[in-house]
Amino acid sequence: MGAASFLRKLIGGGSAGIDRRTENLVGLCNALLAESGEYASTALARDALAAYRELDDPCRGEFFEMLARHYSPSPDAVGRAAAAYQAKPSPENLIELQAVVEPARQELFHRLNMAPGGTAALVEMRRQLLAGLRQHPEWRAVDADLMRVLRSWFNRGFLRLERIDWHTSAMVLEKLIQYEGVHAIQGWRDLRRRLEADRRCFAFFHPQLPDEPIIFIEVALTRGMAAQVQPLLDIRSQVADAAEADCAMFYSITNCQEGLRGISFGNQLIKQVAEDLKREFPHLRRFATLSPIPGFRRWLDSVLLAAPDKLLIERLADPAWHLGEIPDALEKLLMRFCGYYLLKAKHGLEPLDPVARFHLGNGAALERLNWMGDSSESGITRAAGMMVNYVYWLDEVEKNHERYFRDHDTVASPAVERLARECPLAQNG
Amino acid sequence: MGAASFLRKLIGGGSAGIDRRTENLVGLCNALLAESGEYASTALARDALAAYRELDDPCRGEFFEMLARHYSPSPDAVGRAAAAYQAKPSPENLIELQAVVEPARQELFHRLNMAPGGTAALVEMRRQLLAGLRQHPEWRAVDADLMRVLRSWFNRGFLRLERIDWHTSAMVLEKLIQYEGVHAIQGWRDLRRRLEADRRCFAFFHPQLPDEPIIFIEVALTRGMAAQVQPLLDIRSQVADAAEADCAMFYSITNCQEGLRGISFGNQLIKQVAEDLKREFPHLRRFATLSPIPGFRRWLDSVLLAAPDKLLIERLADPAWHLGEIPDALEKLLMRFCGYYLLKAKHGLEPLDPVARFHLGNGAALERLNWMGDSSESGITRAAGMMVNYVYWLDEVEKNHERYFRDHDTVASPAVERLARECPLAQNG
Amino acid sequence: MGAASFLRKLIGGGSAGIDRRTENLVGLCNALLAESGEYASTALARDALAAYRELDDPCRGEFFEMLARHYSPSPDAVGRAAAAYQAKPSPENLIELQAVVEPARQELFHRLNMAPGGTAALVEMRRQLLAGLRQHPEWRAVDADLMRVLRSWFNRGFLRLERIDWHTSAMVLEKLIQYEGVHAIQGWRDLRRRLEADRRCFAFFHPQLPDEPIIFIEVALTRGMAAQVQPLLDIRSQVADAAEADCAMFYSITNCQEGLRGISFGNQLIKQVAEDLKREFPHLRRFATLSPIPGFRRWLDSVLLAAPDKLLIERLADPAWHLGEIPDALEKLLMRFCGYYLLKAKHGLEPLDPVARFHLGNGAALERLNWMGDSSESGITRAAGMMVNYVYWLDEVEKNHERYFRDHDTVASPAVERLARECPLAQNG
Amino acid sequence: MGAASFLRKLIGGGSAGIDRRTENLVGLCNALLAESGEYASTALARDALAAYRELDDPCRGEFFEMLARHYSPSPDAVGRAAAAYQAKPSPENLIELQAVVEPARQELFHRLNMAPGGTAALVEMRRQLLAGLRQHPEWRAVDADLMRVLRSWFNRGFLRLERIDWHTSAMVLEKLIQYEGVHAIQGWRDLRRRLEADRRCFAFFHPQLPDEPIIFIEVALTRGMAAQVQPLLDIRSQVADAAEADCAMFYSITNCQEGLRGISFGNQLIKQVAEDLKREFPHLRRFATLSPIPGFRRWLDSVLLAAPDKLLIERLADPAWHLGEIPDALEKLLMRFCGYYLLKAKHGLEPLDPVARFHLGNGAALERLNWMGDSSESGITRAAGMMVNYVYWLDEVEKNHERYFRDHDTVASPAVERLARECPLAQNG
Repeated sequence: MGAASFLRKLIGGGSAGIDRRTENLVGLCNALLAESGEYASTALARDALAAYRELDDPCRGEFFEMLARHYSPSPDAVGRAAAAYQAKPSPENLIELQAVVEPARQELFHRLNMAPGGTAALVEMRRQLLAGLRQHPEWRAVDADLMRVLRSWFNRGFLRLERIDWHTSAMVLEKLIQYEGVHAIQGWRDLRRRLEADRRCFAFFHPQLPDEPIIFIEVALTRGMAAQVQPLLDIRSQVADAAEADCAMFYSITNCQEGLRGISFGNQLIKQVAEDLKREFPHLRRFATLSPIPGFRRWLDSVLLAAPDKLLIERLADPAWHLGEIPDALEKLLMRFCGYYLLKAKHGLEPLDPVARFHLGNGAALERLNWMGDSSESGITRAAGMMVNYVYWLDEVEKNHERYFRDHDTVASPAVERLARECPLAQNG
Repeated sequence: MGAASFLRKLIGGGSAGIDRRTENLVGLCNALLAESGEYASTALARDALAAYRELDDPCRGEFFEMLARHYSPSPDAVGRAAAAYQAKPSPENLIELQAVVEPARQELFHRLNMAPGGTAALVEMRRQLLAGLRQHPEWRAVDADLMRVLRSWFNRGFLRLERIDWHTSAMVLEKLIQYEGVHAIQGWRDLRRRLEADRRCFAFFHPQLPDEPIIFIEVALTRGMAAQVQPLLDIRSQVADAAEADCAMFYSITNCQEGLRGISFGNQLIKQVAEDLKREFPHLRRFATLSPIPGFRRWLDSVLLAAPDKLLIERLADPAWHLGEIPDALEKLLMRFCGYYLLKAKHGLEPLDPVARFHLGNGAALERLNWMGDSSESGITRAAGMMVNYVYWLDEVEKNHERYFRDHDTVASPAVERLARECPLAQNG
Repeated sequence: MGAASFLRKLIGGGSAGIDRRTENLVGLCNALLAESGEYASTALARDALAAYRELDDPCRGEFFEMLARHYSPSPDAVGRAAAAYQAKPSPENLIELQAVVEPARQELFHRLNMAPGGTAALVEMRRQLLAGLRQHPEWRAVDADLMRVLRSWFNRGFLRLERIDWHTSAMVLEKLIQYEGVHAIQGWRDLRRRLEADRRCFAFFHPQLPDEPIIFIEVALTRGMAAQVQPLLDIRSQVADAAEADCAMFYSITNCQEGLRGISFGNQLIKQVAEDLKREFPHLRRFATLSPIPGFRRWLDSVLLAAPDKLLIERLADPAWHLGEIPDALEKLLMRFCGYYLLKAKHGLEPLDPVARFHLGNGAALERLNWMGDSSESGITRAAGMMVNYVYWLDEVEKNHERYFRDHDTVASPAVERLARECPLAQNG
Repeated sequence: MGAASFLRKLIGGGSAGIDRRTENLVGLCNALLAESGEYASTALARDALAAYRELDDPCRGEFFEMLARHYSPSPDAVGRAAAAYQAKPSPENLIELQAVVEPARQELFHRLNMAPGGTAALVEMRRQLLAGLRQHPEWRAVDADLMRVLRSWFNRGFLRLERIDWHTSAMVLEKLIQYEGVHAIQGWRDLRRRLEADRRCFAFFHPQLPDEPIIFIEVALTRGMAAQVQPLLDIRSQVADAAEADCAMFYSITNCQEGLRGISFGNQLIKQVAEDLKREFPHLRRFATLSPIPGFRRWLDSVLLAAPDKLLIERLADPAWHLGEIPDALEKLLMRFCGYYLLKAKHGLEPLDPVARFHLGNGAALERLNWMGDSSESGITRAAGMMVNYVYWLDEVEKNHERYFRDHDTVASPAVERLARECPLAQNG
């Protein structure tokens, strides 16, 4: 049966309004699925991906629609297979059930991957799918299948940790500039400073995407735990002697592939990097982050404040509030609110702040709150200029992580604990 | 909950007879599965694989038994999710259904893969599982899950085609000697002859198994289509000038990884190699095999023969029948039976001979039957010394392949067609 | 004998005024030379190079002075060995003569090279030596020895031609920006444009200097022979389809290593690149340069002009002469003078213009003069905005090169020949 | 001037008897030398090397003859330049003198090196030259020039130390089997045992000869200093745990390139390998050899022995003398003679035994004499079965080396010293 007739049969009369390009692509996909697996054609896969790349937004929408509607398992077949399995949970019935339940989409994604550049194309396809997901909730099943496949392929076992430095290709370095999501890289000179002898940068790579970092982390090797990010980012700062450092400061971690959203690499990356650095620099005593507190100001705005505090806090309405002298009382108050926010404000059983959630969930300890740790516009706007150090004590990470998930307990230093306790909200409560 | 208590709960009182090492491994597997995916521990995966490697045969049996019994989906949960999906085939219900139907084993295999050497360990695990499958049909569901995972990971898109020659590492070359399954390699000198300038060898490799070929093919570049294999294998034969060759003879193709049984690479490999050779040597006019006919003699023994033929054929009972002069009548008769065997003897709708099935299914054409093509003991025993050339006409491979599967039609040269027609069986029938 | 006493003996009482650091280095050098070659110490070589790197300018001067004075052959020994060779030109006497004539410096440079980074250090040493050569003509013998050694090591046979593109390391790319000597690279965006799909960049590398290009060439793949350089350099220009190009335009060639001055790589590079491009793009019909004419204006200023021409030419005194409309007569006149300059103005028997000397000596043909080929400030200042195309006809390069050196004949197109003939100087002469 | 006429002029009427192939090669060499260096033609170099490879033995002899006769400096020119330098030892005169003294052969070798494979071809050329040197002493000057050039190119700074193991290409491994000069490698199984986890093999490579080791060394990691070589070479011996080793035993070191004879790499290799092993295995306490004593028996035969010793020693005439029980008196006597041989028998001021000369000159200490250290036929024949351990004490190597060359002093353990003292020769003397 030719691809066209196959398609017509598949989508019935409903294909009337379908764009010719979408129709062509669906035809190729069906042809690709028509063979038994052993004979699946690399050439067809390549043609299908080429056809996909040609699609504009509306056509892509049509294609996702087709994937959602026509490549799902038949409810009746599912019912029969499930009943058989319930009646007799034998290997045969289980295998049959799995075969019936697996949407044809999954097999399609596997076959598209055979083409050169297939993996990258599927990551890109998911990026485009995600962009329309909110408006098209019916695509969720497509997304689930694509993510399942990608999660399997981007398993930690297939990723290589690579150091990135000035010997790395411009192709990859350019991606760092483009992707960096925490402290934007201001061109090549800035990037170069971040790759000098007192800095480290590591990324996970997948063999099929040699020029695309999956996630990367930037580290500064320092004496003492850094409290402020601007000096770390200063491109004119002097290059320090890494052999003298006693701290590794993780000051930026960025997920690069939007198409892999929901597949987490950060926990694995941080632990691997800490281990590797410990091996290279046995004298490092502390692995810590210098992290933003992205949700503090928004949360603070939502809190009901009593009279004298309210007045102090209202000063923040002035965009220049931090430029002149800042009253001690305001600093003290903000620090206390921030300590409370990080330790007590919750989203379900976990911290409300997403960065806190990430690091505390990984098993790090909330070590120190840094006044004016980030005086950039974004630092002021989001966190009144404060930053926080999370420390990864290599021997306690596992234990902390378990406490976090079992007891919903966060580990913090006495100093931060006290700030939280001294917050007016704590005292009122 | 500690791994031990988790295990006890899981396997109830039944663990009484379980070996301590198996129990330990199952405990590690459960601990590995206990975390949410993001926090799955590479260290645990490594420990689990180390524990697996320590198992002896009986313990491995226990472990596969545990995998088969305790990591399957719950029939009741399956029933509920299927009913919900039947009632309303929404994305949410489909996603839930898939989650319920997927055995925990699959996730376990993914997590074990995170350890260094994980992929190789899982391929080895399947090899060991397959070895016991006939006696333990209840392991079939485990095998199905492991194969599903491996099939996804060993997708053509992840394999690299590499040329193997005398610059290749001894590590890999040694594997060729060990794995070669068609014409055994008699040590390093033999191997070296097979890698000279008038020979080519290619293999698929997977990034996680850099020292392990997945499948390899050996090619001789010849003038004219080779009819006999002994001259090709002669280690003292003179090295020919590859630039003068007009044929690429595929004389051996070997799957190396028993643990990947059932996942086919041969079709893809042959086509890729033919394309690459065509690019390197544009003057090659023919891509053909020199193939064994492994099932001919067995089939011939099962055929009822009429009087004069019967007598002739009975000469084959003498192990030395081929050493003296062979009567023309016998040669003619055997050639006709063999032509008939290849074209008319069926297993279902496909050829009975497995090698014919492979090449004809790929879209090759049955070109020529070669009398005394393989005079080795195995060639005499299996095919009365005959070999066959299948030709891959690059422009017709797709068409032939389609005819094969649509019309169950095999493509053969007039000469071979005539042999089959002249066979007594054809005339009787 | 310790290094210090050796030194004292060597330099007698004269070392009084020598800086301690220089003395230390000379001591190390002598110790390095003291062993028989087989036992020369890598550690000593490393120490000596480290000591050399510590020297400031005056100390380096002292060191070069020492090299010049104390490591030359003894005139008496030379006299004796020469007399023996004259008396009997036997192998033994020749070997002895060579041994006596070779300055100890040469052996010293060989031994310094044993240290890690030794080759790079010696290239740098020669750069520093050359910088002072004009003021210290007595260092010429040191320079001759160092150059002899470097010329042997930087033999074409040891150089690798490598393509440079966006996959190249930032380390190397940064050097291009730094070294480019013809059309300065304005940062990374400019560089990136020069490495797009319609451009090529190649460099020679030496195995000991993996991050240092020795010489590099930039090529634009164009339809038709480019007449103007600004469009080629425009970073916003559209990337063309290389497969449609019929010309390879060599628009920049830069020697990178000042320390290798006098060792020529350009001729070899151009020929190798032309061959490689011809193989990659068989449809390229022309390999040509778009070259500056660096000496034209200076030469023009030195020419005695007759009345009407003089007035026209004097317009060039106005720095903005080229910005408004330019009289046809001026254009015509400048073109003719330039043609004459390129073909008739000589330095000895060769062209006065250094770029013409290079390309015509290589065997290229002077094809076309381009009015306003380079409207940059430097193009206007040096050549009144004109550029020239030299064409490398691969089949004629050897013949042209021979004619150039045998007959001092330059090969030019009829159009350029006519310009030269029409020049007032030609007609007067 | 064409190459042929150039040649005729050069060799005058004498070319009558020259083979056409030699004449052709000399013509190419002259053409190659005719250009100024910058324009030296890679194509000509390639043609010349191809022509050289075509020569048979007699032609090669003619070619070497031509090199010896016609490419040497002119005695008169040498005389003039030497006189000028004696009169005024200026840089100019020195540069001129060097230019005059350098034979044109050296430049020829440089230019031949420009061809692909040039360096390997020149190494091979020297091998062939050396083979005829004894019969053609007039070629010595050619050899001196070729060696001078090769010595410069094979400077330690250009060599890479590489570990050789089972991941190395068969191409290189095969060379080890072919070259091994101390304890012959009996095929691939033997080689494989020598590359297992308790063994190490290292070689120097040159960038231009990637498939050719220059020199290699084999090391066994052992507990305690090995006294006998057969257990080390036993291919069925169990692989030991390298982490438990406290000794690195250098049991074989082989120079691979006959064409580099006279250029020493052994001293550098041993020291580098010892350093690298020390870094990989910090717990190694001893770096020692297990070495043959190649000249002992020959020397012993030349010694005049007194009556009772004479009778004992005469037993060695029986080829099976060592197979039955060996009288204590004979063992004791041989050990003493051997101690004396190693410490007292001299060749000039250095030890007579070449292996002793090598290791003691390197600064090793003669530690122990091992009775029946090598019971192979060659071990019995050359050294009555004895072997010796030389120890490289990393801290004392330099000091020992200096003592050796300054005071002609060899460092030996008290035990070996006593053996030497107890030798009848010592007591007589």
